[in-house]
Amino acid sequence: MRQSVLFTKTRKFSPQGEVSKNSQLLIKAGFIYKEMAGVYDLLPLGLEVIKKITAIIRAEMNAIGGQEVRMSSLQNPAIWKKTNRWDEKKVPIWFKTKLVTEKVAGLSWSHEEPMTQMVKEFIHSYQDLPIYIYQFQRKFRNELRSKSGILRGREFLMKDLYSFNKTEKDLDKFYEAVKKAYLKIFNQVGIGKTTYFTFASGGAFAKYSHEFQTICSSGEDTIYLDEKRKIAINKEVYNDTVLKDLGLQSKNLKKTKAIEVANIFKLGTRYSTPLNLLFTDKNGHLHPVVMGSYGIGIGRLMGTIVEVYHDEKGIIWPKTIAPYQIHLLGLDLNNKEVWERAFRVYRILTEKNIPVLFDDRIRVRAGEKFADADLIGIPIRIVVSKKTGEKLEVKLRKSNQKNILSLNEVLNKF
Amino acid sequence: MRQSVLFTKTRKFSPQGEVSKNSQLLIKAGFIYKEMAGVYDLLPLGLEVIKKITAIIRAEMNAIGGQEVRMSSLQNPAIWKKTNRWDEKKVPIWFKTKLVTEKVAGLSWSHEEPMTQMVKEFIHSYQDLPIYIYQFQRKFRNELRSKSGILRGREFLMKDLYSFNKTEKDLDKFYEAVKKAYLKIFNQVGIGKTTYFTFASGGAFAKYSHEFQTICSSGEDTIYLDEKRKIAINKEVYNDTVLKDLGLQSKNLKKTKAIEVANIFKLGTRYSTPLNLLFTDKNGHLHPVVMGSYGIGIGRLMGTIVEVYHDEKGIIWPKTIAPYQIHLLGLDLNNKEVWERAFRVYRILTEKNIPVLFDDRIRVRAGEKFADADLIGIPIRIVVSKKTGEKLEVKLRKSNQKNILSLNEVLNKF
Repeated sequence: MRQSVLFTKTRKFSPQGEVSKNSQLLIKAGFIYKEMAGVYDLLPLGLEVIKKITAIIRAEMNAIGGQEVRMSSLQNPAIWKKTNRWDEKKVPIWFKTKLVTEKVAGLSWSHEEPMTQMVKEFIHSYQDLPIYIYQFQRKFRNELRSKSGILRGREFLMKDLYSFNKTEKDLDKFYEAVKKAYLKIFNQVGIGKTTYFTFASGGAFAKYSHEFQTICSSGEDTIYLDEKRKIAINKEVYNDTVLKDLGLQSKNLKKTKAIEVANIFKLGTRYSTPLNLLFTDKNGHLHPVVMGSYGIGIGRLMGTIVEVYHDEKGIIWPKTIAPYQIHLLGLDLNNKEVWERAFRVYRILTEKNIPVLFDDRIRVRAGEKFADADLIGIPIRIVVSKKTGEKLEVKLRKSNQKNILSLNEVLNKF
Repeated sequence: MRQSVLFTKTRKFSPQGEVSKNSQLLIKAGFIYKEMAGVYDLLPLGLEVIKKITAIIRAEMNAIGGQEVRMSSLQNPAIWKKTNRWDEKKVPIWFKTKLVTEKVAGLSWSHEEPMTQMVKEFIHSYQDLPIYIYQFQRKFRNELRSKSGILRGREFLMKDLYSFNKTEKDLDKFYEAVKKAYLKIFNQVGIGKTTYFTFASGGAFAKYSHEFQTICSSGEDTIYLDEKRKIAINKEVYNDTVLKDLGLQSKNLKKTKAIEVANIFKLGTRYSTPLNLLFTDKNGHLHPVVMGSYGIGIGRLMGTIVEVYHDEKGIIWPKTIAPYQIHLLGLDLNNKEVWERAFRVYRILTEKNIPVLFDDRIRVRAGEKFADADLIGIPIRIVVSKKTGEKLEVKLRKSNQKNILSLNEVLNKF
């Protein structure tokens, strides 16, 4: 992509009232645009990152037998009334809207009920199970405050997965498979080392639910982590009984702020019973289906990575989810020879299918180009200028060391 | 994909009140699920088709310089008030919803205003133009009636593209480029021959707008088409003056029902003036940006293709957008030898990256498998059974002719 064509530009300041680091940086670098408090658009660079995150998660969901769907945002009150979750006193974050027919519809803040209702169409006997269904979905939550940028939006993207099993034992097995898949995902997107499998409150059907918490000083949650065993306890459930239960000792635990990037729940029959999602076993007896749900906040994940990977100059993307792999800066482009060299490098990299953002802007000063590159945060910066001659100046975003290499050396190295 | 694992199943009947052919077939074949009137989920087969349509459109949008974004569904009333389109008397199809802060937000029925407002951030001078931005987006429209299945939903998918130019001449040039891109798209998805470039009412800034109308007896629109010149006039603007203007003669025109699968508009300065989207020219003078908008209904396109391509047995997908290329039916799978042959064929096709739906269900009778294959409508049906021996029985969905071929012959032929 030529930067002279890319319609977004970096900006010096983020909008007034934008206090979180993630949205400040993402707005200044041109990844997102703020529509209103808690509501953001994805601009081309931001959409690229989201597409990369989505592809990584999709592959892992498919690997554990997930089948992808896309459910509606408009939801039917009738099914939510059956589980007693339509009332705003129970679920205060509902957005509701009125149809011209005067009926009311809800806006998807979650999908357990519609998902349960939908699979009733397809689950009748034990032979129809197990089923694992996931989607990448827009969620709407009527949050009172929205000050954490894309960490807690009124509208945001989520990957949600639902499991339908015959028995609790089958659920437990799949739950472990999801846990492993999630750890793989967090490793791939670059936050594996700082993300902890965390014990949280379980609800009616399980002792615990589990969260994946990424250590971050700007996190809303507090966890107690055991670095050696790589697990943590959410402050909500932190007490002596839980410590004993998990075989942890308070002296080995570190209290820290963290961001909940994902959560997994054993739902049991909490939704299948009221919504009458039943299956017949081999003997013709009816049982409620045993369910689980597994979420990853996609926008929140992008925001968390920015919170974790940035410095005073800007974002530092892990290469697996960076919008481009190389930021090629052309300096001195008024010089015809340099211009031709820069375009040749761009052409060769592009022909090799290496995703390159090429700063080919003529009227922009070198200092501005360097500042933009640091702000946008693409992993590898390559400079072509009068000074570099036939060679290239190569610098990683995360390091200060500059190397002078030939194009071939660059191609071999990266 | 093994059909024994695919969680959807075909069904004999569509829901009560579902009167359109497209949704009847798509529901019965397991492509979509009805949440409520005018609101449908995409199930795995349906999502596959949508992904294929999306990929075709994305490639053509990128080829004409489009940059992809994803805007929000929640919209800020302030910008819609500036163009006088917030009031339900002007736009009766709004869905509106209340924030906990008591403020009101709109649900995206369209995106001209937010798009215009957003690009103000990036357009200041003539050097910032042109810009072409598109998205694949969920739209919400509070339709009074919703009886056309996925041809007219209360919630649906749309590709919308917006152009921002310095002059009307530049707009005209891009408008032609979009027209060509759209014709390419409709050719690729299989409705090129029956889709007509149609003159419709222009609004304040152009003599005409243009629609792409696909001939279909179940269409809501009426057009007068000239088969030779491959253009048509929408009934709305059909009169002697327009005929003369376009050099058409009524005796050469055929009146027919059609579905509007896309439309393109020259917006001129209709939105840029009230929203103050201005640029400075070389002499420092301010001008409003000249805009255009270009939509394709993605769900509607899928529905149209079903309306056009089906018979009494089911859907007949064009191969470019079919969920799978081959439907492999294993019959007599209780026979170990046949089972092994069928799985071998499946494995070899899959290893060659050919998308195959493999009906490996053991308890389902042959007749049911054939009926399912006809209903689902995958282009190539291949049968492995006791009778076929080492060979395969191959039949195209659109033809009745069966051929006995070897696997190598199949691989060479398709």
